[in-house]
This record gives sequence, structure tokens and C-alpha cells, in this order.
Amino acid sequence: MNLEAALRPYLDQFNDEMDKYLVKRELKPEELYKAIRHLPITGGGKRLRPIVAILAAQCVGGDSKKVMPYGVALEILHNFTLIHDDIMDECDTRRGIESVHKKWGIPMGILAGDTMFSMVFEILDQVEIDDKTFRSVSLDVAKLAREVCEGQYWDMFFESQKKIEELQYYHMIERKTATFFEIAMKNGAELGGAEPQQVKKLAECGRLLGLAFQVWDDYLGVTGKAEETGKPARSDILQGKKTLVYVSTHTKLDPFDRRQFVDLYKKDDKTEADIDAIVKFMEKSGGLEYTRSRAREFSSFAKATLAELPETAAKRLLLILCDFASNRPK
Amino acid sequence: MNLEAALRPYLDQFNDEMDKYLVKRELKPEELYKAIRHLPITGGGKRLRPIVAILAAQCVGGDSKKVMPYGVALEILHNFTLIHDDIMDECDTRRGIESVHKKWGIPMGILAGDTMFSMVFEILDQVEIDDKTFRSVSLDVAKLAREVCEGQYWDMFFESQKKIEELQYYHMIERKTATFFEIAMKNGAELGGAEPQQVKKLAECGRLLGLAFQVWDDYLGVTGKAEETGKPARSDILQGKKTLVYVSTHTKLDPFDRRQFVDLYKKDDKTEADIDAIVKFMEKSGGLEYTRSRAREFSSFAKATLAELPETAAKRLLLILCDFASNRPK
Repeated sequence: MNLEAALRPYLDQFNDEMDKYLVKRELKPEELYKAIRHLPITGGGKRLRPIVAILAAQCVGGDSKKVMPYGVALEILHNFTLIHDDIMDECDTRRGIESVHKKWGIPMGILAGDTMFSMVFEILDQVEIDDKTFRSVSLDVAKLAREVCEGQYWDMFFESQKKIEELQYYHMIERKTATFFEIAMKNGAELGGAEPQQVKKLAECGRLLGLAFQVWDDYLGVTGKAEETGKPARSDILQGKKTLVYVSTHTKLDPFDRRQFVDLYKKDDKTEADIDAIVKFMEKSGGLEYTRSRAREFSSFAKATLAELPETAAKRLLLILCDFASNRPK
Repeated sequence: MNLEAALRPYLDQFNDEMDKYLVKRELKPEELYKAIRHLPITGGGKRLRPIVAILAAQCVGGDSKKVMPYGVALEILHNFTLIHDDIMDECDTRRGIESVHKKWGIPMGILAGDTMFSMVFEILDQVEIDDKTFRSVSLDVAKLAREVCEGQYWDMFFESQKKIEELQYYHMIERKTATFFEIAMKNGAELGGAEPQQVKKLAECGRLLGLAFQVWDDYLGVTGKAEETGKPARSDILQGKKTLVYVSTHTKLDPFDRRQFVDLYKKDDKTEADIDAIVKFMEKSGGLEYTRSRAREFSSFAKATLAELPETAAKRLLLILCDFASNRPK
């Protein structure tokens, strides 16, 4: 089945809902909201977090319409973190277009992100849920946002560290990526009226799916092409990011190669030849292949959590999405 | 009455509550939370927003203890905006100490602020209120945060504009400052169990008090000393901020003087002599005096909103605070 075609109706409905909050409203100052629309509307994006929230609701017989504004809140939260990450990581492009701070300057990038973060909780209020559910969902989203910040801290901190243990790496991506998918599917399931046991399974699916996506992202950071990923090729390497490819290559290399590898990786101005040599170490050591297989493993673990759910179209899509997480070209 | 002595018991109780959330908890990564504590704990601050929320609750017979965690949420929100403002405005000092980004770098400043913003909604959940009130308070706080961002946008935008109308100026400070005090007193009154009419009056008091504080802040920006304000003397002028002193001086000067004044004010590297000349224009035109009298006027309007409330110790303190807003040395 073609995943994109299957998701198209969801995406169209979701993008309409996004427009309701970000485009079809009079929002002033105009320039501020133009900067806010830049990444989530002009740039687009895969809308993965809202999609998994919607599918989680449908898996348990819930109504996708009810989850739409919740999905908008998540997508705006996600885009806010990307805008601020791009400032912190000094990334000039995102989704194939200029990053917000590159186009409008750092102050506007900061401010656009902050405004979007405020909007998250305003939009949560628009979800048709009782006050008790609103309170628990708000709390989940606030905690999730804090975890993303903590994950981003570790991600930046690791850049200055030579040796990162695989467990430290997972600690970081749990916070930066996995919790986001976990909460998306947890809240999606809750909004869909799931039983506690189902909520637990779907939340776990989200967490594993998030891990698969992030580890595969690390893999793509080495193998992906700029026109596919929307980011400059090998930007993770250029920036010295401590991805799973780095971590596992570091572990697998013999001391002599490791030293060369570490020295190259920490260089500030890497040449094309440096990057090629780094990639060779990653291939030769088996670090790249290890990363690929870990991503695939997370995908299959994610699929396993869905075993007891009734067979529905939404579940089929979620299963495909789990495979896609560690197979996608971008 | 000595305001500070009268407020001391409130401040002590409030600072204990702040410590509960920011100091006496194991929070990791340590360095991130160290940066978070820098401004609200090491720097301190006047705690005006929590104080007015607490007093509003007490004015209607409410319990100050219930309002404490709400006040912490507000104070953390306020400090987050200051940290990000300092990056945007390139301010190196705040409350007499280094600003967060000056000490830890811009990425950490951004991240500390974002983490604090997340904490706001987690702490709101700790307030002992029913779910319906939680929902309306959360929504108020989210909207308020967005208004502060919009106000900051105008504040930055005005820097590049020569002529700002007084009404545009009020539009900006309503968003940047007044709404914050308005919501603090509105929610404080609600948590205290106020009647709708009382909520309205206390909210209005907050708005006017916020205006008084901001306009007086503009006045202090010209007349205040660094050791009193915690900011470099005349930093508003150095930075070309469009304060009410600027706006009213611009209106009052004759065309010839106005041109000189505008040219001096927009210079990037102002000398001491430039600043002295600017201050002279502000004095001679009556712009400085006008600002002072507007602040005093807002104070007296704020006091008038309290007329119908029963005579309590909390009301007396609020009245003194209204006077203090346009009288304080810092």
C-alpha cells in the first residue's frame, strides 16, 4: 500500500484544521505571524505527530475529528521547538527552505517560537473534551515540552563530549523525540475513549515509533541526500552531532582508528575529504549498519505493541507507519 | 507605612514556595536548571505579579496560601520572558547581575526560557482548584503569554520607527506589561472566590497598575541610576527604545529641535554628550514631566477601581502599591 496516498485524506483534513488556527484568522502583528507560518505552513512537514495521535484514536473506535485540534496543538509545539533548535544549532535551512531566524533574524526566531508555544495551550482549550481530561492532557503536553528541552540540552552538551555511551544517547532521544510520539499516541487514545490497557499499549507504541524515527534519522544523516532530507547532506557530521552512528562507530573501532575518527569528527572546519573519511569509518566499523538494524528493531517492537488491538484500517496504517519509520528516504 | 516591611511576610512565604519548585527538587540536567535559577532565584526581583495576585485574593476574603503556586507560575513566566527579551534586546545585565545568555550563551538562554515556559503549566496544575477553574486559568495564562510576545514584537519594531503615536505606544505596553498585571489580579480574585463584579474591578486595577509601572519604568529609564535600577543607566536611550518619554518629547518639540532630537536618538553609537543632549530635549520639551504625570494618573485611576471593596489590610496594601508604582526609585 502507498502510505502517502493512504494518509492523504487525513493530511488534507489536518491541514485544513491547521489553516483554521494559523491562516484563516486575523492575527496581528502581521510580520510576526508570517514568521510563525513559515515553517509549519510554507515548509509543511510530515505531520507525523498529529497523524499518530489521530490513528491511535481511530484504533480504539474514536472520532478523528475530535483529535484534529489536539493534533494542531502538537504540530505547533513541534514546529516551535524546530525554530528554536535551528537557532541553537545554527541551521540555515529546514524542509528545503530558509530557517526562520535565517530569514527574519534571531530575535524574530525566538519570538515566533515563544508565540507558538503560547498558542499550544490556547488551542488545547478548543478540543472538545471535559475539564478533567483537559487538565490531564495539558499537564502531559507541558511535561512533554519540558522533556524536549532537556533532550535538546543533552544533544547540545554531547557535541562537546568525545565519548557518549549508547545508554546516554537513548536517554537523550527518549526526551527529545520518543516522549513526543508517546504522548501523542497516549492522548490520542484517551481522546478516542480507549481502555487504560489500550492507552498503555498505544503510548508504548508511540515511544518505540519515536525511537525508530530518530535512530533512522541519524542513519539518514549519513546516507541521505539534501534534496530528500531538506537539510544539507551530512549536516550531523559537519556539526559534530553525537548520533547513534557516531556512538556505535566509536565503540566498534579499534583504538588506533578510533583516535583518527574522533579527531576528524571534532574538527570545526571539516573538508569534503574529512567527511568522506568519517563516513568510511562509519561503514567499515559496522556502526552505520548497526544503526540501521537498531532502527528496524524499534520498528518491529513498535508493531508488536499493537498485537491485541482489533484489526481496523487505522491499525493497518499504524503498522505501515511503523515500517516506514525505519525505511523512509526522508 | 513602609511597603517593603509590610510585604515582607508575603515575600518570605512566596520565596519559600518558589524554592519548592525551583530549588528543593532534583532537577536535571543540573547546568540547565542552574541557568533557570539564575534570574528568579539569584537575581530575585520584586515579585510584583505574584504579590498583586495574592492581594487581590485577600481583598475578597480568599486564602493567600492557595494563590502561592499560581504566583510561582506567573513569576516563572515573567522571568522566562525577561531572559528571552535580554537576548533579543542584547542586554548584558539584569537585576545587577549578568543576564542568562551573557553568562551561558544564547542557546542556553533560549533553552532555559523554553523550559521555564513549560514549567508554568505544570505548576498551574498544582494549584488547588477544580478542573473548570484550571481550564479557564490556563487559557488566561496562555493568552497572556501570547500578548506579551506580541507586545515585545511591537517594542522591537518601534525601535526602527521614527514617529510613534501615543496610542500605538499604549497598544504596545498594554500587551507587554498591563495584561500581565490584569490577569494576575483577575485570576487572584477568582482563586479568592470573588463575585464577578469584584473580579472585573480587580482586573481593571491590575491593568492600570501595569500601565503605571511601565510608564514609570520609562521615566526611570531616563532619571534612574544603575545601582538603583539594576540596568545600565539610560539604557533605553542607548538602545533607541520608543518609551513614552521619547514619544511625548517627539510630539512636544518644535520641528527644528525635533529633527536634532530624532537624529541623536537614532544614532547607533551614542556618546555621553549625545545622551546628555537627548535628556536635555526631554526635560526642556516637557516630555519627561508629561511621562511622570501620566504614570501618577494611572496610579490614581488604579486606586479608584478599589473604592467599593471592603476596607481590609490587603486593600490598604494594594492602595500603597498603586502609589508606589509611580513613585518607586527602581
